[in-house]
This record gives sequence, structure tokens and C-alpha cells, in this order.
Amino acid sequence: MNTTKTLAFGAATATSGIAPMDIQRRALLGNDVEIDILYCGICHSDLHAVKNDWGGSTYPLVPGHEIVGKITQIGPEVSKFKVGDLAAIGCIVDSCGTCAHCHEGEEQFCETGWTVVFNSPDKISSGMTFGGFSERIVANADYVLKMPDSVDLAASAPVLCAGITVYSPLKHWNAGPGKKVGIIGIGGLGHMAIKIAKAMGAEVTVFTTSPSKMDDAKSLGADHAVLSTDKAAMKGQRGFDMILDTVSAKHDVNVYLNALKVDGSLVLVGLPNEPLEVGAFNVVNGRKSFSGSNIGGIAETQEVIDFCASHGIAADIELIKPSEINEAFERLEKGDVKYRFVIDLKA
Amino acid sequence: MNTTKTLAFGAATATSGIAPMDIQRRALLGNDVEIDILYCGICHSDLHAVKNDWGGSTYPLVPGHEIVGKITQIGPEVSKFKVGDLAAIGCIVDSCGTCAHCHEGEEQFCETGWTVVFNSPDKISSGMTFGGFSERIVANADYVLKMPDSVDLAASAPVLCAGITVYSPLKHWNAGPGKKVGIIGIGGLGHMAIKIAKAMGAEVTVFTTSPSKMDDAKSLGADHAVLSTDKAAMKGQRGFDMILDTVSAKHDVNVYLNALKVDGSLVLVGLPNEPLEVGAFNVVNGRKSFSGSNIGGIAETQEVIDFCASHGIAADIELIKPSEINEAFERLEKGDVKYRFVIDLKA
Repeated sequence: MNTTKTLAFGAATATSGIAPMDIQRRALLGNDVEIDILYCGICHSDLHAVKNDWGGSTYPLVPGHEIVGKITQIGPEVSKFKVGDLAAIGCIVDSCGTCAHCHEGEEQFCETGWTVVFNSPDKISSGMTFGGFSERIVANADYVLKMPDSVDLAASAPVLCAGITVYSPLKHWNAGPGKKVGIIGIGGLGHMAIKIAKAMGAEVTVFTTSPSKMDDAKSLGADHAVLSTDKAAMKGQRGFDMILDTVSAKHDVNVYLNALKVDGSLVLVGLPNEPLEVGAFNVVNGRKSFSGSNIGGIAETQEVIDFCASHGIAADIELIKPSEINEAFERLEKGDVKYRFVIDLKA
Repeated sequence: MNTTKTLAFGAATATSGIAPMDIQRRALLGNDVEIDILYCGICHSDLHAVKNDWGGSTYPLVPGHEIVGKITQIGPEVSKFKVGDLAAIGCIVDSCGTCAHCHEGEEQFCETGWTVVFNSPDKISSGMTFGGFSERIVANADYVLKMPDSVDLAASAPVLCAGITVYSPLKHWNAGPGKKVGIIGIGGLGHMAIKIAKAMGAEVTVFTTSPSKMDDAKSLGADHAVLSTDKAAMKGQRGFDMILDTVSAKHDVNVYLNALKVDGSLVLVGLPNEPLEVGAFNVVNGRKSFSGSNIGGIAETQEVIDFCASHGIAADIELIKPSEINEAFERLEKGDVKYRFVIDLKA
């Protein structure tokens, strides 16, 4: 298969940090598009993958799954895009396309396993996929999203992962008018969840361990902010229909299960390395659920892009140069970002 | 308030064991009925309460919440029963009657707290309620169930707790034709769950740690039985819509979460003293839920009584005399019962 040498910013090993490197992108197949990458968000899972925190990392590894850019080439069968269109890629770049879940547009549940945009065995060109920390990417147009002209492109990149990751469960668990929704954590995911849940019409309460973020929660649009280390304040929290848990470290979920109403759900979208302890009575009393959710399908990712565009929602970002990725990773590890780093690939 | 001295079998302290004692039952109020107790099942939570395993036990304590008997007196306002009718009492003997949940017939979610048949502050006659290890009980007819004449009364007593505890979640999570349902544990709850899930039309797989119970699972009606200590066999378990977890000791729930299909639920009805560890990926991947359920309301309890009667379902029991309760508790603690002890109060 013909390939094109492409500049990327990747990790040679689990401890090398990120450095410029050359990778190969496949020559366009019939339904492929080539995207000139303008911006790519940095998600905590990029950092986990680079450091092999979850195992399974293959090096060299080029992370990045919040990709926004412009179409520069299209394959002969492409009808969805034309050269010059704005486009975006999130986590999913391939799936079987034939199983029941793919048919329902929920490729994230593909029975034979979907292809992640990076560090995933590439079923088309062999080898592993390389992500958006790169100047160009080639992908099947069926897995490429349309990006409205009206939006702030850099600030919209995080919609591709942070946005869909919170939109999908908020929608699935019926966040909306008359519903009392909690959001745990104000990071990349949490700050998008506040904006999206408010736009859906829910009453939004934010739980944070940081006194310094109490005001931020309000300015992001939350109706209420609660310091989760304040036991008295936490005791008074009751009647939530759904609480979205964006925390990726070990924490006590039982205090949130207790705050749910009957049939309420605590929905995890964070990915703590250690298991979380659930007390039996905390789910048994009130028929409650501790649930999880992971990104969303291609159709729903397009839906959240359009939802955010129509509601004027984008991430609060810190725009960095490719040469600043390692520093950004260090700050991300300490939670020192408001609220998402985005790489300007043209800087 | 006038009271009547009544023989009961209760615990004087957390370590005294069960002995005969006199308790007082209130004189009948307008909508009260008096039931001459014929049979009372022994549930593991009776034992937990007697030993104060969960805290909150008040002594003397008379357990028993799977009560079947015959109406011997009715108050002047009672229209639901007449003297001589068969009747039954489960866990709930009072609730506010006015909150949204009570209005919906889900008294188990009563916002001001329902009154448990034993060891619960009695809002009518003050003091604590005394349960079914007793010769007679007085209760508001609204919380008393009708018992069909056709059933084996002794073997039907466990429907009042074990039956409703498994029926309610099986119904709530839509067990039925075309659904693949797992049942973890073959005890008082588990053996009823097998029978009820099969009667609902589901394909039933039983998970047990006991090689000796593999055949029992099949004879109770299960389609498949899996030894949960057999790692290879467990790995092949996939595609469950719902798994009902009846285990009341600490155990690994993640292996069962992995066996669920997308959007599947693992539903706990057991009450382990220790919290259970849930791995983030095990709920996040496949949007799965670790949920709980606790008994059911009065209307649904009547429904399961009628369901069991019409499907010829009753518990497999060992009938004992009141003098054998302590020995039964010892055996219950070791899991040595097939599958429910029932006290014959007339023996």
C-alpha cells in the first residue's frame, strides 16, 4: 500500500515524552479523505496511553482524538465532503459496519471491535493507527464528521471526545427540563457537561473538591456548586435524577448514590485505575444504579457537534504549540488546565 | 391503647438466641385485621437482625416477615377480608400513604419511611414492631395480602420476601421471552428467582460456587448451570440482558458485568456487609449498570403471590418447629438449607 510521510508528534517509548517524528499515512482509498489538521485537543486518555497506564500501548505512539481540520483530498467514491470543507475526527475511525450496533449507529458497541484513531490495530493498512498530534490524517469519510463554518474551530476540537463523552449519557439518561442533574468534577469533561446539561434544560449542580473552582462552576453555567469535601453540605444533597461522574481517580461514589432519587443513576465517564467500592445498601435502597458510558457513535458525535454549534457551546481552552505538548502533559497530570489544552498544529 | 398478650419467639439480646417470650399486640383499630399465624419463613435478614449485624437492632426483637395465616378478627372498617380468610404479611405493614411513591403503589420507596413488620418504630402503637415468629399478628388490612386457597401455604410463605425480592427486579428489568437472564446463587432468593424467571419465559443461567448445586439448578428449572469458580467456563459467558445477584457475601461482580450485553444490568438483591468493588471499564464499556433492588410494594407483592399461584410456584422448604429456630439459624449461617426454613407455628 502506498503511503505518504507525515510529520507527527509522538512517543517513542513510555518514558520518552513527546517528540517530532515521521509516520506514514496511507494513500487515499475510494471513500477516504485526507484532512490537514488545524487543531487537536489533549485528553487525559492521551496521557494515559503515552505512559501505558492501562497497558496495551504500542510504540511509537501518536495520540490525539479531538481532531479538527480541512479536507485537502478526497477519494473517488467520497460524496460526503469536498476539498476545502471543514471536518473533524473523534475516537472512532473504523468499525465492522454490519453488526446490529453499527446498524443502529452505535459503533462504540461494535461487536467485532471498532478501530480507535490511535494505538489501535489498523484493519485497512496493517500496523497501528496514529492520531491527531500530526499535520495530516487519512480516514474513511463515513467516520469523519462535518464541522460547521460558524464555530471557533480550536475551542470546538474538545467536542470530539469530551463533548460526546458527556452528551451521550446526558441524553441517554434523559437530562432535560425538570431534571436535577449532578456533575462531579470540573475538568475537560466536567466543564463541557455543565454547559451541555444546562443547554438541555436541566437544573445543574456541580460537585468539586476545589474551593477555587466553586465560582468557576457558576460562571460555566451551573445552578449550584457544592464543595464535596464539606460533609454537611453533601448530606443535604438529595433527589438527583442523574449524576455524571467525570472523576478519573479513586473516590467515594456512595455519597453520590445516596443523593439520587428512586431509580436514579450515577454514571461514570471517568476512568479511575483502581476499582470503586459500592455499598450494597446504596444501590438496593431506592433501586439505584451505578452505570458507565463511553463516548458515542458517529451519528451522535455529529449530533453533539451540531448541538454545540447551535447553542454556542465550545470548550474553555488553552491553545499551545506542538513544542509545548510535554509541558501541557505535566500540567494536565496535576489538573492544572482550564479546561482543555488544544494544540495549534500550524503554530 | 389496649393490648393483648401474645406468644412470640424472639431474641432478648444480640447473643441470646431465640426463646419463647410474651409480647403485646394492639387491640384492633378500624381497618385492622388479626391473623392467626400458621407459617413463617426464615430469611437471612432475620438472622442479621437478631445478631445486630447491620446495627439498629432493638431488643427484645421478634423477627419474621414471611407470614401466612388465617384472619381471626376484623376491625369495623375492614372490607378486604372476612374472618376465616387466608392472608399474608410481608415486610411492609405501614407507610405514609400520601407521598408520590405510596400513591404509585411503591410503598418500599415511601418518602417518610415505611414501617417494617419487625424492629421498626411503630407509628400506631409506639414501641417497636414485632414480626411473624409469633402466634398472632395485628396489622392494617391495606398492608395485608390475600392468599389463594389453592396453594401450599407453608411453601408459599417465602413468596412474601424471597419471592417479591426477585420478582420485582426481574419484572422491572424486563425478564421474559427472548431475554437471557443470569441468577447468581441458589439459596432462598436464588431458587425462587430460577422458578420465577423461567415462568416469565426467560432463558435462565444459574451461577453457583457449589458443584453439588449444579444439578439442583437444572432440577429447579434452569436452562444452564455454570460453576462460577471455573474460570474457563465463566469466560465463555456473554450476552446477558440481566443478571440477578442474590449473594450476601463479598464477591467479584466484575466477572458478571463482563458477561452482560450492551446496556445490560447486574442487579444486586443480596446484602453483603462489605462494599463490592466495581472496575470502571466494566461499566463504562457497553454502558452497563450495577444496580440494586429491595422487595416490592403491596400491589406487586399481591401480584407475585397470584403469579406464583397461577404458575404452581412455591419455595422448596424445610418445615421446622418453633423449638428448632436456633438450630435452623445455625444451619442458615452455613448455607445448609434447601432452600428455605419455614416455621410451623402450630407444631
